[in-house]
Amino acid sequence: MFISFEGTEGVGKTTLIRKIYDYLVSLGQDVVLTREPGGTPMAENIRSLLLSVNNEEKMCNDTELLLMYAARAQHLNQVILPALAAGKTVLCDRFTDASFAYQCAGRGLSEEKLQLLNDNFVSKMPDFTFWLDAPIELGMTRARARGELDRFEQEKAAFFEKVRSGYETLSVRHAERVKRLDASQTADQVFAQALAYL
Amino acid sequence: MFISFEGTEGVGKTTLIRKIYDYLVSLGQDVVLTREPGGTPMAENIRSLLLSVNNEEKMCNDTELLLMYAARAQHLNQVILPALAAGKTVLCDRFTDASFAYQCAGRGLSEEKLQLLNDNFVSKMPDFTFWLDAPIELGMTRARARGELDRFEQEKAAFFEKVRSGYETLSVRHAERVKRLDASQTADQVFAQALAYL
Ligand SMILES: Nc1ncnc2c1ncn2[C@@H]1O[C@H](COP(=O)(O)OP(=O)(O)O)[C@@H](O)[C@H]1O
Ligand SMILES: Nc1ncnc2c1ncn2[C@@H]1O[C@H](COP(=O)(O)OP(=O)(O)O)[C@@H](O)[C@H]1O
Ligand SMILES: [Mg+2]
Ligand SMILES: [Mg+2]
Repeated sequence: MFISFEGTEGVGKTTLIRKIYDYLVSLGQDVVLTREPGGTPMAENIRSLLLSVNNEEKMCNDTELLLMYAARAQHLNQVILPALAAGKTVLCDRFTDASFAYQCAGRGLSEEKLQLLNDNFVSKMPDFTFWLDAPIELGMTRARARGELDRFEQEKAAFFEKVRSGYETLSVRHAERVKRLDASQTADQVFAQALAYL
Repeated sequence: MFISFEGTEGVGKTTLIRKIYDYLVSLGQDVVLTREPGGTPMAENIRSLLLSVNNEEKMCNDTELLLMYAARAQHLNQVILPALAAGKTVLCDRFTDASFAYQCAGRGLSEEKLQLLNDNFVSKMPDFTFWLDAPIELGMTRARARGELDRFEQEKAAFFEKVRSGYETLSVRHAERVKRLDASQTADQVFAQALAYL
């Protein structure tokens, strides 16, 4: 099983994935908890380029998209595919749906561009995806409380509204795979919603 | 005019491009000398990831290809296109042909994959390309004399033979654009060969 966790900033992805990880491990399962962009030392270096704030040079949308897929190719081939081949459960904090939501819905890149990267560089999609949905302002308040904001977190609410609606589109288009969780509830309640699906 | 310089390690690309730059500037032209991967601070950071030697984690071929195109997207949009729009001459140390030679001919990635990245992320090809061709061993001897070897330079001769034949393929396929220079001659003789074309 390959399960991904999606949603805008501060909705509680990392909090939920940690609870599910602990739960599955307590059942004796062999589980890999990982994240994107990142998940290998090399891909984490690419993550640093993606998230670091640079006021001198604007990162082009194409550059952002291609860096995401470079990190993903490394992560998929080095971590996710080997783990799945070994019969492990993989829990991944963001995956390809995030590129649709952020780079297409958010930045305005064409779906065709994304589709062609998926077709050629992503040989395995998640079996199941939790979309944590909460009002943008609530997530941003939680993210701000957590600490300094990265390059994405510094975007304006209007950007995140577009990202959120990108996730909504996916949850309709791939209703059998992408399940919406009400992330405005407490962390324990969100965990209970997720458990009901698992 | 957008002119690129191609060839395997140590054939003398950087040496030649410098001479041509000085020559064109002496004629009063407005010239931009740049290089790939790199050419902007952000793209140079991607270059560091690409060239740095990492004995713990092998970089996947797809990762390498996508990082090259991420750096290229940034460089093209931030440096090359604005310079050309301003009527400047751009001299670029490696460009898309290098991805064909290294990632396709060298690493064995499919031409289709490369073509689709070119079609979607490279809106401008060089008007003219110098391919500096010399026996692999000669280039490697020069590169070794220059200093420590990067991740590409550490490849074996068999890899570079494939890269060289990739460049040969391009010089036949795009004969009107890609011109072979005999790079086994002295730096001044190579410069004279290039001048004959300019
Ligand atoms: N359901 C929740 N209710 C209230 N606070 C939460 C909830 N889930 C997470 N948090 C807190 O909000 C902040 C952001 O959560 P996090 O899991 O890091 O979000 P994300 O990974 O989606 O950006 C953290 O400080 C976390 O402790
Ligand atoms: N035609 C030449 N003959 C002899 N040495 C050369 C020639 N061109 C360059 N060199 C030297 O060989 C080394 C590699 O040249 P360089 O221009 O850095 O190659 P490249 O950029 O193709 O890797 C440098 O030390 C340079 O001074
Ligand atoms: Mg998180
Ligand atoms: Mg050079």
